[in-house]
Amino acid sequence: MAHKVMDPDSLNANVKKTVYAVRGELYLRASELQKEGKKIIFTNVGNPHALGQKPLTFPRQVMALCQAPFLMDDPHVGLLFPSDAIARAKKYLAMNTGGVGAYSDSRGVPGVRQEVADFILERDGHPSDPETIFLTDGASKGVQQVLNALIRNEKDGILVPIPQYPLYSATITLLGGTLVPYYLSEEANWGLDVTELRKSIIAARRKGITVRGLVFINPGNPTGQCLSETNLRDLIELCIKERLVLMADEVYQQNIYQDERPFISAKKVLMDMGRPTSSALELISFHSVSKGFVGECGQRGGYFEMTNFHPQTVDELYKVASISLSPNVNGQILMGLMVKPPRPGDVSYPLYAAESQAILKSLRARAHIMTDGFNDCQNIVCNFTEGAMYSFPQVKLPKAAISAAQKAGKTPDVFYCLRLLEATGISTVPGSGFGQKDGTFHIRTTILPAEKDMPKIMESFKKFNEDFMRQFADSNTITSRL
Amino acid sequence: MAHKVMDPDSLNANVKKTVYAVRGELYLRASELQKEGKKIIFTNVGNPHALGQKPLTFPRQVMALCQAPFLMDDPHVGLLFPSDAIARAKKYLAMNTGGVGAYSDSRGVPGVRQEVADFILERDGHPSDPETIFLTDGASKGVQQVLNALIRNEKDGILVPIPQYPLYSATITLLGGTLVPYYLSEEANWGLDVTELRKSIIAARRKGITVRGLVFINPGNPTGQCLSETNLRDLIELCIKERLVLMADEVYQQNIYQDERPFISAKKVLMDMGRPTSSALELISFHSVSKGFVGECGQRGGYFEMTNFHPQTVDELYKVASISLSPNVNGQILMGLMVKPPRPGDVSYPLYAAESQAILKSLRARAHIMTDGFNDCQNIVCNFTEGAMYSFPQVKLPKAAISAAQKAGKTPDVFYCLRLLEATGISTVPGSGFGQKDGTFHIRTTILPAEKDMPKIMESFKKFNEDFMRQFADSNTITSRL
Repeated sequence: MAHKVMDPDSLNANVKKTVYAVRGELYLRASELQKEGKKIIFTNVGNPHALGQKPLTFPRQVMALCQAPFLMDDPHVGLLFPSDAIARAKKYLAMNTGGVGAYSDSRGVPGVRQEVADFILERDGHPSDPETIFLTDGASKGVQQVLNALIRNEKDGILVPIPQYPLYSATITLLGGTLVPYYLSEEANWGLDVTELRKSIIAARRKGITVRGLVFINPGNPTGQCLSETNLRDLIELCIKERLVLMADEVYQQNIYQDERPFISAKKVLMDMGRPTSSALELISFHSVSKGFVGECGQRGGYFEMTNFHPQTVDELYKVASISLSPNVNGQILMGLMVKPPRPGDVSYPLYAAESQAILKSLRARAHIMTDGFNDCQNIVCNFTEGAMYSFPQVKLPKAAISAAQKAGKTPDVFYCLRLLEATGISTVPGSGFGQKDGTFHIRTTILPAEKDMPKIMESFKKFNEDFMRQFADSNTITSRL
Repeated sequence: MAHKVMDPDSLNANVKKTVYAVRGELYLRASELQKEGKKIIFTNVGNPHALGQKPLTFPRQVMALCQAPFLMDDPHVGLLFPSDAIARAKKYLAMNTGGVGAYSDSRGVPGVRQEVADFILERDGHPSDPETIFLTDGASKGVQQVLNALIRNEKDGILVPIPQYPLYSATITLLGGTLVPYYLSEEANWGLDVTELRKSIIAARRKGITVRGLVFINPGNPTGQCLSETNLRDLIELCIKERLVLMADEVYQQNIYQDERPFISAKKVLMDMGRPTSSALELISFHSVSKGFVGECGQRGGYFEMTNFHPQTVDELYKVASISLSPNVNGQILMGLMVKPPRPGDVSYPLYAAESQAILKSLRARAHIMTDGFNDCQNIVCNFTEGAMYSFPQVKLPKAAISAAQKAGKTPDVFYCLRLLEATGISTVPGSGFGQKDGTFHIRTTILPAEKDMPKIMESFKKFNEDFMRQFADSNTITSRL
């Protein structure tokens, strides 16, 4: 048969080059095993509801009423819905003429953007302009929109931390730009070192790359660290000096597991620095309804805020957003509900507070169980998960395992993760999907399995790891750089 | 102040070049006027719920229960929800572990893709493979995904009808490809002429363009025509001979307003042609929950089906889709509900049938009122809206109006539409946003204002047009090509 018009060989080269490991070989194999009847524990994606986290009651009551406004005409509605949920649903339905079934403005419903601006003001103590806020189908779509405007050709570089969340590497490849890596320091609890960053910039420029933007993820994915105020200030100064747009991925800002290192937004640090600094940096901050204690991944809600941008640049992003008409309205309303939850005194406050605190408390407990569990295993070291929802332990693989992997045509961490999957059903992502220093090997897991299942999972992991290390034991275990 | 890093001048050139008229100058001016308190009739976007169309009860009951599954544990649930809506919600919640709050597979929930495949089988009499169906955040996102894989560089051309829906021109520009226009024949009720198409292909090749794909919209947007089976067969043969991927935008397949010209899918025509033809064409068909009688634009549900593609090409699209994790799950469920509505015998069938038939009947009536209304105006001719939800009348502008437009720095149709907006509050889109033959001028309106308001709107339009034509009357009105 003749070659196809859309033969795999004749596709857009950037599409072919793009790699996305979170749903790559490991995920596909796990899906196969699941079809064959094996019990799989999916820890490859931060997808809390899929692992049993219950949705919060109040936001879902409001969402249900927005879907079925006719319920509010029924005399029985009060039996199933509290009064503040009804009031809130009416408010959202009035905000977008036609409700959830109507396209909104392409940047999102103005009333919800105002709620986001109010939230930012309350969080940071500095005002936010709703005209610079775009609601998006999850934060990922926002990141793609921004990078699409920023990247002009393969000579434009974006600084991305290594290890990174592969949304960034995949999107930069797809858009034909160049990823400029900067390494986080595993020895310093995955800290961000500005000297290291500067070296990366110089090296990239030497290759003729115009470095245009810098991405950081705070709290870190997959690395779990929280950046300090000093660290953020250094970063901001560097970006101003080197003329970089700062992209602050702050989707895990609610997921903090130690009190001595709270989340501070890049916007707050920037504004606290005062003029002229506070107006000198082009900053884009991303947030999402998928993470936090809401965890509403499937509803695809997100926003980004553009600080200090040229108004025409904001207009250009608006124009491109309008081609897709509007982000989904359900995700927008959920964003409003996340940033403006019930307050003390509201009917639904006690339940909302109890539910959300229980989730955060349990996540904190799970972060500890997991880190401790990994550190209790042979040849494994793991930094504590200060924030976000992942562990990223380093596995020191014996030489024999590395040889066996090479024979099997696999990179060593993929080999390890596949063995883990087959033996235990635990579906992780190999560190190579996120990037890691040469000669080191990691795995990424979420901390999301139910708290009660966690000890058993860690036990099953430990047993697998023992067997693996025994099978591939060699006289002197490879010394990693750590 | 120094230039910004993301200065408007330094953005991705394709972003700057992109034009999207549906939410362009006219829409922005209408939004301003609305803020100032003027009553605006938004007929620029096919957004039925925003213009008062009520959502169908059954799908919204199911959606509400999917948002708030805890309602189903309440003994009062039967007071507010029928039993078949409860059963259906349980089915969807079981299909995606974690419900609407969990990411699905990146192609969409397998169970919903099966419902879509069943719908296609029933519609066409030919089977459909759910593994080749991708659920998307509205059809627009699907079109963008496919074009992104198809277009490699500025030498790759996509045939697009003129007039067209500007999603196509905008996306092709954004992706750095070349739009190859082919003109629909206004004289032949916007028919698609294969000879015309062949000429376009030859002309493009002469310029060094590799023509890779052909888009058609059936029923047409903005032109409203339905393609005949013969027409579709000719198109398919042309695409096979010229080695083109056929992109069939069939989002208006439910919106048919005359019985003698029913909708026939390109897939059915292709399969009816039998081997070897039926396996020779790479066909992608798009559908959406935004149109039809469901009209759920804001929920962003869509799908595309890939027929006769190389499996690795399907995998490449899957990989790219996975970067955004998953389409929103609400839109997916709504798609399932649209393609698998209540059947005779179901508790909710009588209401569903009554509601959906009333909407279609009214749309048909509005198509007539609008076409007749336009044809009753001086210097205006309008083909009948056989399908979709738009009218696209030609306005024969007097020379004096064209001069006045030039003086005002506007293209003549933009000038006319702005005047119309200021005088009546009717927000349309100028024909130039969709493309039109040189020297002809059109406006596009939806047929979506409420049926009861329609006569008044057409009267107000007629009065404006009379005043306009009187103001700019000249001795001999410009003779258009029609």
